Amino acid sequence: MGRYNNVSISVIRRLPRYHRFLEDLLNKGVHRISSRELAQKMSLTASQIRQDLNCFGGFGQQGYGYNIDALYAEIGKILGLDKGIKCVLIGAGHLGTAIGRHIPYESYGFNLVGVFDADPRVVGGELRGLTIKHTDEIENFCKLYNPKMAILCIPKDTTLEVVDRLYNCGVFGYWNFTQVDLQLFYDDIVVQDIHLGDGVMTLCYLMNEHGIPGEER
Amino acid sequence: MGRYNNVSISVIRRLPRYHRFLEDLLNKGVHRISSRELAQKMSLTASQIRQDLNCFGGFGQQGYGYNIDALYAEIGKILGLDKGIKCVLIGAGHLGTAIGRHIPYESYGFNLVGVFDADPRVVGGELRGLTIKHTDEIENFCKLYNPKMAILCIPKDTTLEVVDRLYNCGVFGYWNFTQVDLQLFYDDIVVQDIHLGDGVMTLCYLMNEHGIPGEER
Repeated sequence: MGRYNNVSISVIRRLPRYHRFLEDLLNKGVHRISSRELAQKMSLTASQIRQDLNCFGGFGQQGYGYNIDALYAEIGKILGLDKGIKCVLIGAGHLGTAIGRHIPYESYGFNLVGVFDADPRVVGGELRGLTIKHTDEIENFCKLYNPKMAILCIPKDTTLEVVDRLYNCGVFGYWNFTQVDLQLFYDDIVVQDIHLGDGVMTLCYLMNEHGIPGEER
Repeated sequence: MGRYNNVSISVIRRLPRYHRFLEDLLNKGVHRISSRELAQKMSLTASQIRQDLNCFGGFGQQGYGYNIDALYAEIGKILGLDKGIKCVLIGAGHLGTAIGRHIPYESYGFNLVGVFDADPRVVGGELRGLTIKHTDEIENFCKLYNPKMAILCIPKDTTLEVVDRLYNCGVFGYWNFTQVDLQLFYDDIVVQDIHLGDGVMTLCYLMNEHGIPGEER
């Protein structure tokens, strides 16, 4: 089905990071880099970089290094950032509003086409040029616009009910900020769980293990 | 230095998830669970759960299962969620405001004591009962309050300069929402990088590989 079926997920997860570093170099006016220099910048090994990029055909020339413009464009194409997959934001509270406003969706392969909330005080407001609709309208909206991805910024209790409805409308990608582990409930969806609480609890653990200076243990 | 030096980071990273699932069970009035049932809920194996929890001494009794109240409290203690590590939020734009308001810091082991922003239009405002101060005041504030963790919701360009100042004030834990890979620049800090863009680009890739229904490939 896919174009790069044999590429491991760990390589894929590194691609956005390459994309980010290459963009940074382009912004600084750098257009060519050796795998060794790039490796240094990213704290990887040159051979890992060559291996990673070879999964997709390889873009380097011995003795010349990588053409950053070409490599950047190609990684963008591999990631599919030119596709503009239609997505909806569910939940326009504090977090939803920030995620709605903060993310340059167009640069990341998405096109935000709808925003929904269950709170009548929020419905009718505006976010990123879109009028916030009531979650009751999800089905009608999906019939018209056919979004494929949903960003979930809703309370835990309502998550599964909302996802069930979105799923039945053909939404199969989820950027999930709720506390629910969505992957446990569906086999045939694609999920990025952002469990902010898990991350900050891990940070708490690591800081305590590191030892808080000035405190007795 | 630490209390559980031989515990692998992958076990540690699973602890917040255990904590979350156990809290959920307690909220539903469940107080005892077998490793098999817990494994099913979390999509792990019973032996993995027993192994994980044995790293910290083990809490189960054969034939009885786990006492959820005791296990939940113990994991909280292991993570150090009772410590109330003082933290500051740097950047009170859209994302910073949402992160400032949305996160129950007290439940995650932290105590938010200060909020800073460089924009004079934002300074003087209020966030979570705290008056937003100018970033110029970071050093004076740190001398007085001695925070150990900083949440970074600032633009990429200013990140390293701000972190340098915080680092010199003894801040060694960073919950990093910027696009900078902080770990590359300091050896002796503890970082949780939340690269939202990386996650959503990965989602884009996976959705394209999965195949968008109704679209030619």
